[in-house]
Amino acid sequence: MGKIGTIPMIEGLNQDLVKKAQKRLDNLTKPQGSLGRLEELASLIVGITKKENPSLQNKVIFTFAGDHGVTEEGVSAFPKEVTPQMVYNFLRGGAGINVLARYVGARVVVVDMGVASDLKPHSDLIVKKIGYGTKNIAKGPAMTKDEAARAIEAGMEVFDKEFERGIDICGTGDMGIGNTTPSSAIASVFTGRSVKELTGRGTGIDDKAFQNKVRVIEQAIEVNKPDPNNAIDVLSKVGGFEIGGLAGVILAAASKNVPIVIDGFISGAAALIAYHLEPKVKDCLIAAHSSVEIGHKAVLDHIGLSPLLDLNMRLGEGTGAALGMGLAEASIRIMTEMATFESAGVSERSD
Amino acid sequence: MGKIGTIPMIEGLNQDLVKKAQKRLDNLTKPQGSLGRLEELASLIVGITKKENPSLQNKVIFTFAGDHGVTEEGVSAFPKEVTPQMVYNFLRGGAGINVLARYVGARVVVVDMGVASDLKPHSDLIVKKIGYGTKNIAKGPAMTKDEAARAIEAGMEVFDKEFERGIDICGTGDMGIGNTTPSSAIASVFTGRSVKELTGRGTGIDDKAFQNKVRVIEQAIEVNKPDPNNAIDVLSKVGGFEIGGLAGVILAAASKNVPIVIDGFISGAAALIAYHLEPKVKDCLIAAHSSVEIGHKAVLDHIGLSPLLDLNMRLGEGTGAALGMGLAEASIRIMTEMATFESAGVSERSD
Repeated sequence: MGKIGTIPMIEGLNQDLVKKAQKRLDNLTKPQGSLGRLEELASLIVGITKKENPSLQNKVIFTFAGDHGVTEEGVSAFPKEVTPQMVYNFLRGGAGINVLARYVGARVVVVDMGVASDLKPHSDLIVKKIGYGTKNIAKGPAMTKDEAARAIEAGMEVFDKEFERGIDICGTGDMGIGNTTPSSAIASVFTGRSVKELTGRGTGIDDKAFQNKVRVIEQAIEVNKPDPNNAIDVLSKVGGFEIGGLAGVILAAASKNVPIVIDGFISGAAALIAYHLEPKVKDCLIAAHSSVEIGHKAVLDHIGLSPLLDLNMRLGEGTGAALGMGLAEASIRIMTEMATFESAGVSERSD
Repeated sequence: MGKIGTIPMIEGLNQDLVKKAQKRLDNLTKPQGSLGRLEELASLIVGITKKENPSLQNKVIFTFAGDHGVTEEGVSAFPKEVTPQMVYNFLRGGAGINVLARYVGARVVVVDMGVASDLKPHSDLIVKKIGYGTKNIAKGPAMTKDEAARAIEAGMEVFDKEFERGIDICGTGDMGIGNTTPSSAIASVFTGRSVKELTGRGTGIDDKAFQNKVRVIEQAIEVNKPDPNNAIDVLSKVGGFEIGGLAGVILAAASKNVPIVIDGFISGAAALIAYHLEPKVKDCLIAAHSSVEIGHKAVLDHIGLSPLLDLNMRLGEGTGAALGMGLAEASIRIMTEMATFESAGVSERSD
């Protein structure tokens, strides 16, 4: 119990292909390295996908929703009804992630991992409900170890099913009122840093609510004593259903050589779970942006990722991931569409 | 002589419309301000365009080319034949700017402002040649004051002509072997900072060539004594034809309430010229990115702009501007396509 049946096999990066891609980029009509991170991104995507001419036609954002019992401690500025209301908004195409996904040409896959109420059926809603919200982590574990394992497995299943329709690159996104609280707890357990250093204001709480939030997270860790050497233990004690599901998406995507663009703080917490289950996932991760949430940087540093964008964003849903995907596609077009010095008859450096 | 006939009237930002746009953004289904710089960008574009629902359908990158006599001092890693070769590459669609402009749906307007050789005629090439490259600024002025004024006017003409075809947002880009050298000189004159602080390695020179480049720029300033209170004087003494032309584009676009996404260091030098001719242009400028060129930050600070992206890029051509335009379009789509709390039936904050 509490063990995932199978952590899928992950190959990791093909370094030879990465080098080959950089060599190819060096022959394009520009000073070597002058497109900076776009060049790194293109080589990385070649190394992940093992395709010398990857197409990023099929782009998918996985937006997973779940509720959190800890909201009864007053850790969020929004009431928890907002979780299902936003799921309906996703399904109608009116949320931030819908707009940005449309802009970059990605489809949004919306999954109920554990919303606290029953959602009206919808042809585009995938229901993988592990429970009606987690339990209050300030008082005990969020979920059982078995539920934690099932959340991860559900995420893998969602990815695998969607993969049949075609996925060249994917992004992670979240919706769950209160979910920066478990994310801070997860970040603190794995990085060993203090809760205070890793806790932000989520959707926008005031000073007093912030002090309370820090105290609640500290208490959650004290009460549950999650074991940093056991990612399932951490997820079950201070995690969330959507966080577990996204960890599953990351594991499944990495095993299929699909690059994963991770969004902000909650996606970062999911990446921590996946990384501590199988460190090789790191090779397949692209950090889209640096969130306003103060703990996000520590999460990315811990895994060893450097964010592409810093636009002062803190919405979640996969909004940062969508913008990061746009850069990923731009990078591949640079590599595959630009002329070479030879084909364009342009002289190379004179030294 | 040496005076532009008319600096066009520039209204600047409509602050009421900026506030109105931010209020509208605050009613969309997301925590207030949670899309950070995308929200700022959308409000700014409303304030510049004076349109509550701006469309960014017509996007144009102005890529201006010119040669620089100072290349005879060995300031660049590439031979100057590369300037016309790259112009042909632009016209064939094989350069970095072509790829990124296609990706964001922008057209590229290529202008010969002063390439040192005659270019083969091409239906898409606009010829506004002020001279066959500038003179060597290490020995005397780059151009006459009259040529400086004509370069700016030519840029305004190019913008005005293209504006008839429709421009909702524009970006600046440059091509000119050696043009980081005059850009550093311009930056030093206007910001008052030392040449060494503002000089980088351009397309990639070694330590020895870098020391020489700094010395050449210092000498150019010493020999010419450009007057920081007279932008035409600065342009004529240590500038470039493409830099003057881009300053003209900026002035003309600002006068037509068209947002201008400025690219890297050379575009920054052009923005400095435009800004010192008419400080109100600042209101209409969007800084796309932070270039690897060390002087770029000082230029943006001087004008009071904060770059959107930092992707370690240093290619020029308008490549950063193209990516910035993509973010601009994303920001407008957020503002115009997202659901409101009311329309989506989502609860607002509980405090």
